[in-house]
Amino acid sequence: MIETPPLVDQHCHGVLRTELGLGTFEAQLLPSAGPPAPGTTSFDTQAGIAVRRWCAPLLGLEPHAAPVRYLARRRELGAAESARLLLRGSGVASYLVDTGEAGDLTGPKELALAGDAEAFEVVRLELLAEQAADTSGTVGAFLVNLAAAVHHAGTGAVAFSCRADAAALARGPEAPAPGEVRAAAGRWLAGRPRGGAVQDPVLLRHLMWSAVASGLPLQLRLRADGAGGAADPAPLTGFVRATAGLGTRLVLLGGYPYHRHTAVLAARFPHVYADAGAALGRTGAGAGAVLAELLELAPFGKLLFSSGGGRLPELHAVGALVFREALGRVLGRWAGDGSWSWRDAERVAALIAAGNARRVYRLDERG
Amino acid sequence: MIETPPLVDQHCHGVLRTELGLGTFEAQLLPSAGPPAPGTTSFDTQAGIAVRRWCAPLLGLEPHAAPVRYLARRRELGAAESARLLLRGSGVASYLVDTGEAGDLTGPKELALAGDAEAFEVVRLELLAEQAADTSGTVGAFLVNLAAAVHHAGTGAVAFSCRADAAALARGPEAPAPGEVRAAAGRWLAGRPRGGAVQDPVLLRHLMWSAVASGLPLQLRLRADGAGGAADPAPLTGFVRATAGLGTRLVLLGGYPYHRHTAVLAARFPHVYADAGAALGRTGAGAGAVLAELLELAPFGKLLFSSGGGRLPELHAVGALVFREALGRVLGRWAGDGSWSWRDAERVAALIAAGNARRVYRLDERG
Amino acid sequence: MIETPPLVDQHCHGVLRTELGLGTFEAQLLPSAGPPAPGTTSFDTQAGIAVRRWCAPLLGLEPHAAPVRYLARRRELGAAESARLLLRGSGVASYLVDTGEAGDLTGPKELALAGDAEAFEVVRLELLAEQAADTSGTVGAFLVNLAAAVHHAGTGAVAFSCRADAAALARGPEAPAPGEVRAAAGRWLAGRPRGGAVQDPVLLRHLMWSAVASGLPLQLRLRADGAGGAADPAPLTGFVRATAGLGTRLVLLGGYPYHRHTAVLAARFPHVYADAGAALGRTGAGAGAVLAELLELAPFGKLLFSSGGGRLPELHAVGALVFREALGRVLGRWAGDGSWSWRDAERVAALIAAGNARRVYRLDERG
Repeated sequence: MIETPPLVDQHCHGVLRTELGLGTFEAQLLPSAGPPAPGTTSFDTQAGIAVRRWCAPLLGLEPHAAPVRYLARRRELGAAESARLLLRGSGVASYLVDTGEAGDLTGPKELALAGDAEAFEVVRLELLAEQAADTSGTVGAFLVNLAAAVHHAGTGAVAFSCRADAAALARGPEAPAPGEVRAAAGRWLAGRPRGGAVQDPVLLRHLMWSAVASGLPLQLRLRADGAGGAADPAPLTGFVRATAGLGTRLVLLGGYPYHRHTAVLAARFPHVYADAGAALGRTGAGAGAVLAELLELAPFGKLLFSSGGGRLPELHAVGALVFREALGRVLGRWAGDGSWSWRDAERVAALIAAGNARRVYRLDERG
Repeated sequence: MIETPPLVDQHCHGVLRTELGLGTFEAQLLPSAGPPAPGTTSFDTQAGIAVRRWCAPLLGLEPHAAPVRYLARRRELGAAESARLLLRGSGVASYLVDTGEAGDLTGPKELALAGDAEAFEVVRLELLAEQAADTSGTVGAFLVNLAAAVHHAGTGAVAFSCRADAAALARGPEAPAPGEVRAAAGRWLAGRPRGGAVQDPVLLRHLMWSAVASGLPLQLRLRADGAGGAADPAPLTGFVRATAGLGTRLVLLGGYPYHRHTAVLAARFPHVYADAGAALGRTGAGAGAVLAELLELAPFGKLLFSSGGGRLPELHAVGALVFREALGRVLGRWAGDGSWSWRDAERVAALIAAGNARRVYRLDERG
Repeated sequence: MIETPPLVDQHCHGVLRTELGLGTFEAQLLPSAGPPAPGTTSFDTQAGIAVRRWCAPLLGLEPHAAPVRYLARRRELGAAESARLLLRGSGVASYLVDTGEAGDLTGPKELALAGDAEAFEVVRLELLAEQAADTSGTVGAFLVNLAAAVHHAGTGAVAFSCRADAAALARGPEAPAPGEVRAAAGRWLAGRPRGGAVQDPVLLRHLMWSAVASGLPLQLRLRADGAGGAADPAPLTGFVRATAGLGTRLVLLGGYPYHRHTAVLAARFPHVYADAGAALGRTGAGAGAVLAELLELAPFGKLLFSSGGGRLPELHAVGALVFREALGRVLGRWAGDGSWSWRDAERVAALIAAGNARRVYRLDERG
């Protein structure tokens, strides 16, 4: 058996404070363009089965309790107590919380308290731009306020995050010139309804390069598994080359089913790191195979666990518990057949589970 | 051990009525641009080994009998009796037969009789267009005859099928305007030799949208495994979005080695279903790994078995028997290690093997 | 247990003659754009663990000896004796050496002597062009000298190799017309610094078609695993179609993580062969899964082992030993569960390990 230390979850969001009915719970379980097809249920997925397998016991039920029984028990305990039990049962010691997700979600401090863990903030760059746009009257004020917000965030947060947008990088990976940024900002602000999201490729590139200049790690969110279409990191290669040697660290989040491609980038470029998590929880019993594929080429010092959880604390718990079991099973098999030593297996498990994240995000200087 | 009910094969063709020599048999076994390379044989593939492993016993030989022995036994029994034994030994209760394949093949009724099963027709849209073109003198007559043929087919068939053509969808996924269809039909009819195939992207889109309007499920045939090049479903995403919420059901056939991508689409869009079959038979001993990958993200109510068999009844039998063993092995492993309950494993096996197809194609209203 | 005969390594390079320190050794172990990230080491990869597992015992240490101990032992023995022990311990009988790699590397004869094996030369086409350019004063002389060099190489070598360049094939896969070649050569020679590499797409296509005309097999080097970005063989499909039926044999090298795609091409086209090696050594304990994926659709007469080794003899040894174990494990599992017969498993192992390469490169006519 491989022992894994308490985890650092390098990418998650807060949890919903509200009580949930069956339909709402199902809708949160599986990212989808609509309700389940007639005659089907979101519980009939690896994620659904993993919730019943791992979370039911944390709430005092037998493993694989039926969905209705599970939700009845959850209501009986209440949303807050359920979250407390699920988070504390997941074996996570530190959360890196991307606070840019919409909804009535717990913030980092509240998540830390519920989970008896520490929590750090990851600031979503798009949100800084949108907040600056909401509060600035002119293009000049917007750019000044945005720069100040990035600077300020950089003093409190452990990382920035930004959508890895293919269109934003297609025109060239370099930092856009000031005049280009000014023109793009003008167009965006002129046409923007209050609260409107930033989609402009020049502004997105400007945000990414602001993060590079800050010296904090930049998490690039590839299109998540289940979000439809591809999550191919190929369009990022130019940006990766352009940022090599500048002292920045890029962390690729998501990528499934292109996770082998993110591993190749992490092997090729010293400043690139890959996520070993978000997709795993959703693949449940299949997680070992996905994890083993990541471990084919990714250097073991470049893979970082995350749950990708958010809204439902079940997703934090499943992400952590599925990961821990898959990691133990895969490394244990290799050690068991002599391909690895047990000592290396334990050491590498500790790196992916926590050590790499502590080093990359410099958590010990913050904690 | 997981018990699987009799299968519904959602995608197959009829079988050849003629006796086959070694060379002809080999050519049918592996779709290829030419005869095997010097010094090689089509039997040295997973498909070839699976035929010897699964079909030899059904014809009264030991498993893994040599190819020449197998073919001698097949000739001794005759094509009809061999087909009868192979089909009846495959555990398939219902065939959905795409009748658009060229060649002297048995129709649905004859296949049902040989296999002691029920059979339903899937109508290939391209064939309706080609038949309407053969019998219509003018563009106006062609369009009226085609509409009538689609309507008529819709009353007897359980589904339509159409090639998933990237070029046909590149100009935009929407239904083409009547004037656009008329112009495309005019160009096609003017240049078409008798029996010529429909390749025009506007006409293909028109056919797809005719199927959507019919209310029957539409099977989209991605480039099959082994057909060279990619079978990436990414170009379909626009069409998938455009047909969401219209009450249509899209079933993606094929896709290997992009099967994880089809599973992602089935997870993302309520009206999209994915094939859990055609490639499996060809991968033989490797089928469990491919099936497990499909099961990572696809909702279990959205995967449907097919053999993809045609011409050789061996392909129907291998498709079914390889699938059944792989499904039992994969789900049995997960139940055995506690990731799943045995009850869920049996229930999900029944859905993929038969239940999903019976629901999606409304077979119980037809049977 | 599956017995595998002595291997034919269809793609490798010579080894460095110099002694190596820790940093240099690490840099050779993992192709990367720079030194390992702070806090990480190239030994923490599957390749690094495989070196300690397989090579340490060949140098008289226990398996999984620590990196510093391994390197100390290597220095104690000296580079030449270490190479001798590693190569002779790898179970390779024949090396096909691509002599186009830069550096102070052993040639085929020296490698054969060190490894107590036979060695054959694979001539890199780009190098012939660069040598002809270095020694020719005019475009006309260059083209004549290049044709003579290709002809001469064809009498001694067992194959040609060329980079599989997407841009080179994007304009059309056909052999470029003489005028086109002449113009491209003129442009290249005019702007070329001494020793400059050939990048011109027209010249690369001209080189590939020269190899086709020679009748020798042509190895197409897809971007290697770890080299960043994709190695998708899709851009090759046009060239593959254009060369079908001409008697040429194309061998696709590399391809990971697109190895299933190369297998599909080998299944589809009689004259296409796929590499079952180069990526495997690097994936160490994960090699069985990658190999099993190749074996899903590739005909077993179309897969050829290679180590992809070069510079470090450790890479030759690891490539061979990881391959042999993975092959034995995968085929042994299939034979053990009855999917394959043991006789087929041994026969297929021998084909992939050596027989296919002996046939495709006609080694028995050369040896």
